[in-house]
Amino acid sequence: MEIRVMKNILDANDRLAAENRAYFAKRKITAVNVMASPGSGKTSIILKIIEGLGKEMAISVIEGDIASSIDADTIDKLGIPVVQINTGGGCHLDANMIQTAANAMKIMEGSILFIENVGNLVCPSAFDLGENMKMVIASVPEGHDKPYKYTSMFEAADVIILNKTDLMPYIDFDKESFFKGIKALNSRAPIFEISCRTGDGVKEFLAWLREQTQTN
Amino acid sequence: MEIRVMKNILDANDRLAAENRAYFAKRKITAVNVMASPGSGKTSIILKIIEGLGKEMAISVIEGDIASSIDADTIDKLGIPVVQINTGGGCHLDANMIQTAANAMKIMEGSILFIENVGNLVCPSAFDLGENMKMVIASVPEGHDKPYKYTSMFEAADVIILNKTDLMPYIDFDKESFFKGIKALNSRAPIFEISCRTGDGVKEFLAWLREQTQTN
Repeated sequence: MEIRVMKNILDANDRLAAENRAYFAKRKITAVNVMASPGSGKTSIILKIIEGLGKEMAISVIEGDIASSIDADTIDKLGIPVVQINTGGGCHLDANMIQTAANAMKIMEGSILFIENVGNLVCPSAFDLGENMKMVIASVPEGHDKPYKYTSMFEAADVIILNKTDLMPYIDFDKESFFKGIKALNSRAPIFEISCRTGDGVKEFLAWLREQTQTN
Repeated sequence: MEIRVMKNILDANDRLAAENRAYFAKRKITAVNVMASPGSGKTSIILKIIEGLGKEMAISVIEGDIASSIDADTIDKLGIPVVQINTGGGCHLDANMIQTAANAMKIMEGSILFIENVGNLVCPSAFDLGENMKMVIASVPEGHDKPYKYTSMFEAADVIILNKTDLMPYIDFDKESFFKGIKALNSRAPIFEISCRTGDGVKEFLAWLREQTQTN
């Protein structure tokens, strides 16, 4: 019974996600679904992207949180179009929320849209938003065992970022094990190691991201 | 429609949670539901408790993960009775899983049972397992804004631990804001600041925990 209902929810979501996908394609919008645990650096990475690419391409942001508008306020101060979605307890964004938000904000043609999901390494991976790319962020203090425990998220990723590499000296992080765990699940997603704090690796990641938006 | 089904699921869960609660009470078991984001240090804190209190009280552990038995293997090596629950995609433990696991492992009378939930700062807070105490762990690298964004988890907590305080010098963590955010939601839960890595604050936390099990 629960499984059947779950399937219905996902079917309904998939229909709306397909509509979003068509909407984005028609307007040459590259939509990026940004997913991670709480506090992995989703907003910090979006801010680095705005800093690095904001002058050469149009950027919009949809912020997803259970409560608060802390992240949207930060983005808004930079003059970037942003909408905050509060899920009010919900553990993930869904395609319907994105459709409503996208219609409300009128995303510019040819722009890149970052959709920051609720901080959750489990549920968001099951809900297609109609995005072009799933960006999954892990961070050094979370530990190297995350790909072994949160498999569906790392399987679904189109690109993986390992953030907070500046904390490596203070943490027992087995990088080889982390990479091995990802490779067992996902051989196609590139992995970038960066530190939003020091800026290490950000340039390489931005160069890759620029290429993706050009080929879309 | 979805809301009604969700209510049914929660009703069913609550009935089983009540059975678990009676089961624990009858056997003078103190059950602790340990909840946190991925990589906040749930297992590390359980290991510190085993190290500090394992000689004076019987301890059992139920490990919840989507996949893998990494944490259960670690606990098992210490000779502590442990069962691993793999939710196979599920984003939280529920009362039924705990009932099955508790029956399988025959938890000793008068013992303390740690139930390590799936790493998720959202969904587990909605599911009563029949526990006596909800222990919520935050960690310094996750940032001080977590109580503002993940309100239900911090509201539900009976005790809150701020872990990884050794990383404070390397992170912009506003402790005042963190405490203020919690106090706005929850005035009854004590907050302990600890570092599993250096051992800072662990003694004070264990002294408090010892008291809780004695009065139960």
